This record gives sequence, structure tokens and C-alpha cells, in this order.
Amino acid sequence: MKLVRYGSPGTEKPAVLTLNGDGSEHAYDVSSLTADITGEFLAADGLTSVRKALAAGDLPAVELDGQRLGAPIARPSAIICVGMNYAEHAAESGSAPPTVPIIFFKTPNTVAGPDDEAYIPRNSTKTDWEVELGVVIGKRASYLDSPAQAAEHIAGYLTANDLSERTFQIEDSGGQWSKGKCAPGFSPLGPWLVPATDVDANNLRLRSWVNGEPRQDSTTADMIFPVDFLVHHLSQYLTMEPGDVILTGTPQGVALSGKYPYLKAGDVVEIEVEGLGRQRQTFAQA
Amino acid sequence: MKLVRYGSPGTEKPAVLTLNGDGSEHAYDVSSLTADITGEFLAADGLTSVRKALAAGDLPAVELDGQRLGAPIARPSAIICVGMNYAEHAAESGSAPPTVPIIFFKTPNTVAGPDDEAYIPRNSTKTDWEVELGVVIGKRASYLDSPAQAAEHIAGYLTANDLSERTFQIEDSGGQWSKGKCAPGFSPLGPWLVPATDVDANNLRLRSWVNGEPRQDSTTADMIFPVDFLVHHLSQYLTMEPGDVILTGTPQGVALSGKYPYLKAGDVVEIEVEGLGRQRQTFAQA
Repeated sequence: MKLVRYGSPGTEKPAVLTLNGDGSEHAYDVSSLTADITGEFLAADGLTSVRKALAAGDLPAVELDGQRLGAPIARPSAIICVGMNYAEHAAESGSAPPTVPIIFFKTPNTVAGPDDEAYIPRNSTKTDWEVELGVVIGKRASYLDSPAQAAEHIAGYLTANDLSERTFQIEDSGGQWSKGKCAPGFSPLGPWLVPATDVDANNLRLRSWVNGEPRQDSTTADMIFPVDFLVHHLSQYLTMEPGDVILTGTPQGVALSGKYPYLKAGDVVEIEVEGLGRQRQTFAQA
Repeated sequence: MKLVRYGSPGTEKPAVLTLNGDGSEHAYDVSSLTADITGEFLAADGLTSVRKALAAGDLPAVELDGQRLGAPIARPSAIICVGMNYAEHAAESGSAPPTVPIIFFKTPNTVAGPDDEAYIPRNSTKTDWEVELGVVIGKRASYLDSPAQAAEHIAGYLTANDLSERTFQIEDSGGQWSKGKCAPGFSPLGPWLVPATDVDANNLRLRSWVNGEPRQDSTTADMIFPVDFLVHHLSQYLTMEPGDVILTGTPQGVALSGKYPYLKAGDVVEIEVEGLGRQRQTFAQA
């Protein structure tokens, strides 16, 4: 099953997509279980309640055709990003592969729907795409004892575009990357939140395209620090709250490499993580 | 007047402190105006409604003696920190003064009350204090035209301790500072939120003490980038929401300088920003 939020920004409603016996996909309204897909809902084992209600046939059908999709998780308290987590991306960025996870943050107000119009920030000349596997925390995580404990703290996964402005990130920042990561709309998430039990996070193809031309094409198997390692490691430095999102790093094939032009108004970016759905953003000038 | 939040963590109630005609300070309950001191309350010109209710004598007295104080703003969506904003602190940290504001983030779940017990993180050997002027945003700020516009977006100011773990921040981080800034309880805020109209943010003495011995003693007049400059500048890179907090950097006199030992369990840190109140944290081992 796949959770989605649909409707206008700020007033999205929750729904679930599931396959029927004949292989066709149908959407069901989840409003009877929760007003929104929030960290609190995930922490209260909301995914199990959705599964049970689906199995019992308790959820009314809903038509999503023509509906805008929002990010599939409402209001994370933090978006924790892992930098340089693919060796070939570190190389194309001019860096050695890291020996420990490197983290930075995006502000929660950068979250956008997967197909929302995106923006070239004002004064930007180097707006870049980054397809990433996103991890959604389901249970507060602090000082975990081992990577094996990570699984019980992960609700699910989603496709994420870690949009970046390289001049802001690298040249205007004194070297602290977050400055180029927080422009309005810079964190498209979704379309789906897929429960962790349905995902092999360590073996997912990630791809991106600009105006239909392929850019990134890698696999999460190439991560330097895999998801379980990251959740355990991060929990030694900060407390992750239910609904928080970890962006696990991007593979090679971004404009920062010098191989491709940066984005401009009118460009269309598509990204996809295998099994987690595809995003499509048309860029406008902010 | 000074806004406070009092009571147990997570269930604080709002109150206001004000001087009567005889110079004595009294506390009044603000629950009739708002359930909490949030960004939404500030954006709705809540400070004016408090002033009017005080003037009209509409607020019931409340006794704060013996009450815990929480951070005076509930649930910021972001805590935006400015690094190296005092030249002598940059020097003691081994860095040249920055030519542009350098930013990093603390997660919102690090916020603590001004006198709450604080923690030496597990595996920490370099926990450090940083007294800072905190700016509380009152109105969404994005792409401001000039520093002169900053004032209308600032609700008020508070005392902040930007607690830091230097090994996590500098050595374990690949150079991205936030990793040493987000341990549990690492952002004590308060005691008071003082309205901007009552504060000259560019001329406030900042001091800190460890076990009663003086450490930092400077003035916000020494900031490389003053508050109005920062708000305008940051708004070019990210959108600040009502209730968000900007920590404007710390002056020289921290343990990172090598002049003082790092903190250990049992130590007592006090910090004060002139006119914004004093904090006092006793440290325990996490």
C-alpha cells in the first residue's frame, strides 16, 4: 500500500492506494482514521490501522484523478540531509568519500508536493537537482544501541528531490551547505509514503531526467552509509521525531559535476526512486 | 513587558510580566488571549493584544514563584544559527572573520527552558556554552527588499544558549557544524520574550559564567553582521516563519578557545543578555 495526501497546499487529506485482486490500483479515503498523515499518526501505529481498515473493507473509495498530491507526510519537525553518501557523487563534487556521515538541514517549510511548480531562487545561477531516497521516522529515535534497532524507528520511504543552489551552498556560505538548500519549495517529497515493510531500502534504482534527458541512474546499494547505519549513527547526535525525514544523499549525475547545465525557468525535472514513485517539476523564476 | 511560558514541558501556559507604577513587577495570565505563545499568535499581532489587555486591566494575576519557565516561544519551525559573527570569537576558533553570514541549524526539538537541567551528550568530551542574542520572527520574511524592512518582521528578542559539542561539530562532522549543535536540550531559550519595541538589539551586553567564574563578556555592538542585516540577508536564501528563532552568534570566551575547560556533569552555566534575562543550567550526563 501507498499513503498519499491530496488537495490544496495546507489542506491536504489522507488517502491510501492499494492493489485489488485483479492487479488494478484503487484509492481509499483515510480521513476516518486520521485527519492527516503526521508524525503522531505514524507513532500511534497508524500504518497498521490503515492496513486493518483496508482488509476489513472499512474505507470509502476516493477519486484522485486530477487531484494535486502534496508531500505524503505533513509537517516534519526536521529534514536531516546526508551529504556525499555516494562515492561517485563525492568525486564529481571534488571531494573524497567521507569517513563519517556528514549532515546538514533543510527547513521544514521547503517541503513541496511531488509535482508542484518549482522555483529558481532569485539571484540563482546554479540551481541543481538531486534524486534521493527519503526515510520517514515512525518512532522517536535517540541513542539507539545498534543499527539493527533502526528498523523499528522507520515508518517508510519516499522519493525526494534535494534541490540545491550551488553558489549559495558553496560560495556564499562560508562552507556550511544549508544556505543553498532552503530556498522556497526546495524539498519536493513523494508522491507516496511506502511502508518500510514493503521496501528493500538497500537495493533501489534512483534516476533523474531534465527535459526528458537522463541524468542520474544509480542504486541505493551504492550508498557509503546504508539506511540502518545512518539512523543508528544520527541518533547518537540528535533525537529524530516521528514524521522527520532523512534524505540519504544523491548519486552522481548532477549539474555540479560540470557535465550538465544548471536549471533555468521552463526546465522540467523528473526523478524516480524504484517503487516509491516519480516526481515531475516545471521550474519558474522566483 | 516580557512574555513567558510557565508550567511543565509540553503543557506551558502563557503569561506576561510587567512593571506597575511603583516599579514592582507583576505577572498576569494571558490564556484568555491565546492558548500558547506561538508563531501564529505573534503573526496575528498578539503582542499588541497583550499590551491592550494589560492597559485595560483585563488580565488576571498569576503567581510564578516556584514555577518552571519554558522557552518563551513554542515550537519554532526552524532555529537558524549564525556562525562566527563576532570577530574575536572567529579568531579564538582559529578562523578569519567571515565576509558573508555563515548559517547552520539546530533542530527545534533541542529547545529547552532557561533553567532546565542540561545534558552532556553521550560520548562527549567537548561540550561548550555560547551566550547569544536570539531574534524571534513575528511575520513571514522572504526576499526582503532591504535591511530597513527587517524591523517589521521581528517580534522580539530572547537570551539563548547555543550549546555545542566541538568534537561532534568539527571532527566527527566532515566540517558541517550542525552535527555538534543538536544534542537533546542543546537550545535553552528565555526566560523572556521581550518585544522588539523595547530592545536596542545593537547595544546589549552578553555574559556567561561557569560555576560562577566569568567567561564571555561582550556586546552585540561587536557583531560583524547586525540583526537587521542578518534578517534581510537570510531572507534571500530561505523563508523565515513566525515563531522561528535566529541565534545571532556568540562572542569570544568559550572553551573552544583553549582558555577554559569544557563542561562536565555537575557544572553550572549561567548566561545573560542585557535586558533579556538570565539562564542557569546544571549539567547532568545524558
